[in-house]
Amino acid sequence: MTRFRLTVEYDGRGYVGWQRQDNGPSVQAALEAAVLGFCGEQATVQGAGRTDSGVHATGQAAHVDIAREAAAGTVRDALNAHLRMAGEAVAVLDAAAVGDDFHARFSATERRYLYRILNRRAPPALEIGRVWHVARRLDEAAMQAASRCLVGKHDFTTFRASLCQAKTPVKTLTALDVVRDGDEIRIAARAPSFLHHQMRNIAGTLELVGAGRWTAADVADALAARDRARGGPTAPPDGLYLTGVLYP
Amino acid sequence: MTRFRLTVEYDGRGYVGWQRQDNGPSVQAALEAAVLGFCGEQATVQGAGRTDSGVHATGQAAHVDIAREAAAGTVRDALNAHLRMAGEAVAVLDAAAVGDDFHARFSATERRYLYRILNRRAPPALEIGRVWHVARRLDEAAMQAASRCLVGKHDFTTFRASLCQAKTPVKTLTALDVVRDGDEIRIAARAPSFLHHQMRNIAGTLELVGAGRWTAADVADALAARDRARGGPTAPPDGLYLTGVLYP
Repeated sequence: MTRFRLTVEYDGRGYVGWQRQDNGPSVQAALEAAVLGFCGEQATVQGAGRTDSGVHATGQAAHVDIAREAAAGTVRDALNAHLRMAGEAVAVLDAAAVGDDFHARFSATERRYLYRILNRRAPPALEIGRVWHVARRLDEAAMQAASRCLVGKHDFTTFRASLCQAKTPVKTLTALDVVRDGDEIRIAARAPSFLHHQMRNIAGTLELVGAGRWTAADVADALAARDRARGGPTAPPDGLYLTGVLYP
Repeated sequence: MTRFRLTVEYDGRGYVGWQRQDNGPSVQAALEAAVLGFCGEQATVQGAGRTDSGVHATGQAAHVDIAREAAAGTVRDALNAHLRMAGEAVAVLDAAAVGDDFHARFSATERRYLYRILNRRAPPALEIGRVWHVARRLDEAAMQAASRCLVGKHDFTTFRASLCQAKTPVKTLTALDVVRDGDEIRIAARAPSFLHHQMRNIAGTLELVGAGRWTAADVADALAARDRARGGPTAPPDGLYLTGVLYP
């Protein structure tokens, strides 16, 4: 039995999210079906982050135990062949043999997310479902300035979904950066772990700052209030990407 | 009656191409339906380049004559509202009032195309239909070196579709550049005008060079042969984008 770490890319639009659920297709189930097709084994594919419906990934991490002897490159290529045959918008970018003590979720030391806002008058044609379209002009410098108060160790209750199951709302946001690239505003975040909807609630709040409706002080006050009702709206899943997971 | 120049973005996957045809939805028909919805006028939307089925645009240009009095920004927003209601993957990025002597096709002095190759083992998940996936490693420096012999004024019969209706196969390629950005190889070209399939045939030929199957001298020989049978294969439409059209 060999444990493989997988690096996974997917378009979240057609899925109920990463996690296997009864109400529709999931990325996890797509990968497990590919494993079954490859080696006839009903294995659980454990992911590092349980992304929501419509959320994308360019660097999700996962692990799976496979009894059939195979080189890592063979596992990657075979899973991709089965995913493609099944018409899944999921690809395995990399597979690597790891030790039995590796756990995609519990061994992870950092998660990285990117939130993309298409900031122009015209709605997206090429990026439908892959960006949040905001027609009014946003001030990315104000957004970047306001983002600073969120970096560090805080009680993020204001930016936490009411359904969040984390034991504590205290999290350490290692980095949060807002940059503009033409018509696109990119919010990049790094943290050991995130609360449910934390990134989307931060994006929805920073959008208010960019639009001039909130100041940086309003964001700091909202954070200090530790009250979800004081935070900005939840940005749509369309713009969110899990871009990477780090391990020791 | 006012003539408007439109800058148009579209995802070519769901269309038979730019041009109105009997066998399926076209970008041109989508725009004409939006004009009809906006002002009740059955106007022809004239494009700068007749892109093929599956070819995308981030900067197609077009013009249309509209009798209803409206500011350019209103035309842009109204057309986008109608396109969105119709579920089209087409957006009007800009509208500008121009003189009656402006013609999107005949006034254009330069067209710009981009060809995107996803060069990695794993197939695309996020970019399905929007890149050409080439799994074997390509040498972009060799591709760039080979591209040089195609720049300038040449008889491009070797890179011309057999169905091409242009009066002459002699065209001037102003620039042709190959760069790698991570897993992606981007071939960018500029010319006053292009032959049918010229860009896709060039991409298909440069891929052979990147794979080490052709040398730069083979490309020069193929060009000199003025024979389509001597050129490389036609690359798929998925990776091709009309990125801009210039006017005096």
